[in-house]
Amino acid sequence: MPQNTNTFPVSTSASEIEPFRVMKILGEAKKLQQAGHDIIHMEIGEPDFPSPPCVHEAAMQAAEQGLTHYTASMGLPELRQALSDFYREFYGADVEAQRIVVTPGSSCALQLALSAILDQDDRVLMADPTYPCNRQFVKLLNAEPLLVKVDHHSRYQLNLQILRDNWQQGIKAVMVASPANPTGTLIEQDELLKMAQFLAQQNAYLIVDEIYQGLVYQRPAESVLAQEDLPNNVVVINSFSKFFGMTGWRLGWCVAPPHLIDILDRLAQNLYLSAPTPSQYGALAILKKANLTELERRRKIFEQRRDRLYDAMQNAGFRLKLLPQGAFYLYWDISEWSKDSEAFCRELLLNTGVALTPGTDFSPGQGCQHVRLAYTTDENRLVEAVDRIAAYLQTKTTT
Amino acid sequence: MPQNTNTFPVSTSASEIEPFRVMKILGEAKKLQQAGHDIIHMEIGEPDFPSPPCVHEAAMQAAEQGLTHYTASMGLPELRQALSDFYREFYGADVEAQRIVVTPGSSCALQLALSAILDQDDRVLMADPTYPCNRQFVKLLNAEPLLVKVDHHSRYQLNLQILRDNWQQGIKAVMVASPANPTGTLIEQDELLKMAQFLAQQNAYLIVDEIYQGLVYQRPAESVLAQEDLPNNVVVINSFSKFFGMTGWRLGWCVAPPHLIDILDRLAQNLYLSAPTPSQYGALAILKKANLTELERRRKIFEQRRDRLYDAMQNAGFRLKLLPQGAFYLYWDISEWSKDSEAFCRELLLNTGVALTPGTDFSPGQGCQHVRLAYTTDENRLVEAVDRIAAYLQTKTTT
Ligand SMILES: Cc1ncc(COP(=O)(O)O)c(C=O)c1O
Ligand SMILES: Cc1ncc(COP(=O)(O)O)c(C=O)c1O
Repeated sequence: MPQNTNTFPVSTSASEIEPFRVMKILGEAKKLQQAGHDIIHMEIGEPDFPSPPCVHEAAMQAAEQGLTHYTASMGLPELRQALSDFYREFYGADVEAQRIVVTPGSSCALQLALSAILDQDDRVLMADPTYPCNRQFVKLLNAEPLLVKVDHHSRYQLNLQILRDNWQQGIKAVMVASPANPTGTLIEQDELLKMAQFLAQQNAYLIVDEIYQGLVYQRPAESVLAQEDLPNNVVVINSFSKFFGMTGWRLGWCVAPPHLIDILDRLAQNLYLSAPTPSQYGALAILKKANLTELERRRKIFEQRRDRLYDAMQNAGFRLKLLPQGAFYLYWDISEWSKDSEAFCRELLLNTGVALTPGTDFSPGQGCQHVRLAYTTDENRLVEAVDRIAAYLQTKTTT
Repeated sequence: MPQNTNTFPVSTSASEIEPFRVMKILGEAKKLQQAGHDIIHMEIGEPDFPSPPCVHEAAMQAAEQGLTHYTASMGLPELRQALSDFYREFYGADVEAQRIVVTPGSSCALQLALSAILDQDDRVLMADPTYPCNRQFVKLLNAEPLLVKVDHHSRYQLNLQILRDNWQQGIKAVMVASPANPTGTLIEQDELLKMAQFLAQQNAYLIVDEIYQGLVYQRPAESVLAQEDLPNNVVVINSFSKFFGMTGWRLGWCVAPPHLIDILDRLAQNLYLSAPTPSQYGALAILKKANLTELERRRKIFEQRRDRLYDAMQNAGFRLKLLPQGAFYLYWDISEWSKDSEAFCRELLLNTGVALTPGTDFSPGQGCQHVRLAYTTDENRLVEAVDRIAAYLQTKTTT
């Protein structure tokens, strides 16, 4: 088809949406790899493990029985019930199945929840650094993200005091993640409860992203839903992507207060009809107790990797400001080496073959002096990566 | 968790989103079925066939090889290439793989395309009746759907003349579907080209939903992308749901002009990360020539059903205004019997066990006097449904 060369007007708000800088690094890393270079991938935010076999076995079995049609828009009733049971058994949380909405990835859960809450020009408070899509979801609804710079003193998290100090008119919701991406840090449950109560007084919502739930180390996994007297303004986002290792299956969920369920259902019916059916049957299998042992084994591997990587960094003289309790990330302040994390990541990739994520993906404010290390590769490779980086930065200082 | 009974403010625009009326009918139909009634389902807009076995076999094989991670946000390169080849081979259309964005269902393709084009307060012209989600996608972006009533004189479709007659300031896009839901009618390719050219002069886009492509009868399937001199303002939406029978796998795509691709990619990265990986491998299999024969067999079954159902309706004295050329729907003007299609559908369900979709899902203007019949069930059951309806309406007239 001979293309007409006219271009037509595009959406101003969509044009402003930032790309993932990590995709550029990933692209360059792949090219180098194809050219024969030995690349250590620490840029990608997903488990290196494939999904456990019980997932595709169950998906296949369902498909063989002809279960390949749309499901109910809020998800298979038996999956919503299984999640409700899971909350009771593992978190001591009493969450009715009717409050659980199964979504295509937690990405859609985030979009659904924000769409149900926000009108245009509403404001949403979130930490800087934060998961990059959150800002964009808010902007796409013509609402306004308010970023509050946080640092290691609050473990890169919001807390009640920070909410109070930064409160302003028009804030309809606050978004937090625990454990968080890119920092791996938690918010303690009693703090979350206090934040929810404060927000309830302000008639605002607390959106708690628990998608790295289960991936916590040296302490039990928790859910804010287990808190007694939680006000009706808390929406919890979760996913089968990370702890359950099912990224490519695109399945998540959200738990919402009863008064939002009907709106969430209508949004789901219109925005995406239903979550992938094979994935839902796969998820039913992975929630079975016997199949969780593999996930616990993987969790332990992540814990070991965290410890090895953290130690290697400290030993190399790259002092990290804290040891994160969860997820699979370390957040590294590189200001000693560079004030341009994108250039720094490119430089490291070219000179050491180590691929990291520039902090600018997560933080407009201070991202230029941070990078994220994902321990989503073998322990020994992680240590080798630090050795390579250390050797390279050494040559730089001495020249 | 004792629920606090406070409710918190919800989004005004989201509250206005209409539910699918068909879900209510579906729920009632299922209840009656469980109570032992013999229900004929003609309300559901998806093929009754499960996805062909090659789909889950390929998905399973990929999963066994560990291919369960996120894919590139625009889709597996080999799937984009396979779609490009498909366009060349079956439609004689030259569509570069780089212009194809694989999405989680065409639902997300619609959302992506509209998000890339629209700013708030922009207007989008569409036919009344139309696929219900289109209005809602537009509203969620704080843009305004403009519905233009169409009837059998234009085969329930927009055309160049209707565009001219209804043109007004601020229209950024026109949405059409060919074949359409709920009417099953087509727009001829030369008309589509003229519409695209007219819109190009107005600096506006034409979004062509081809998701029922392949499901056309007594004529070859076509794509607007095969038109020469197509201006750069045409976005095509498509899906593996209907012709390919993969509804539950949630996989679709869009073909966009080059200047939109980068924005679509950034939107995809933020809105949903990537389409389901097993579904993408499944789709790769179904696009293989050998596997298309099963789809052709199914297409012929739909064609027979259309003819049987249409004849049965005519014979029963339910004169339909036209014989649709595609999809799997008939659109029936019931004004002779009722001016309240929702009540009419409920009444039919209770008295005859036949479940239909009220036109109000598709048309705020004239939906109250139309219903949609989906021929997504066995031929003989379709004829029985008409017999039951005829017998029931007979008793009504005579009493
Ligand atoms: C904090 C956080 N929330 C949500 C998501 C979205 O994940 P998914 O859509 O796979 O559930 C991610 C993915 O990296 C994340 O890091
Ligand atoms: C005209 C039309 N477009 C788009 C869709 C969305 O389908 P999917 O998201 O399964 O591709 C449908 C579903 O019924 C439809 O009828």
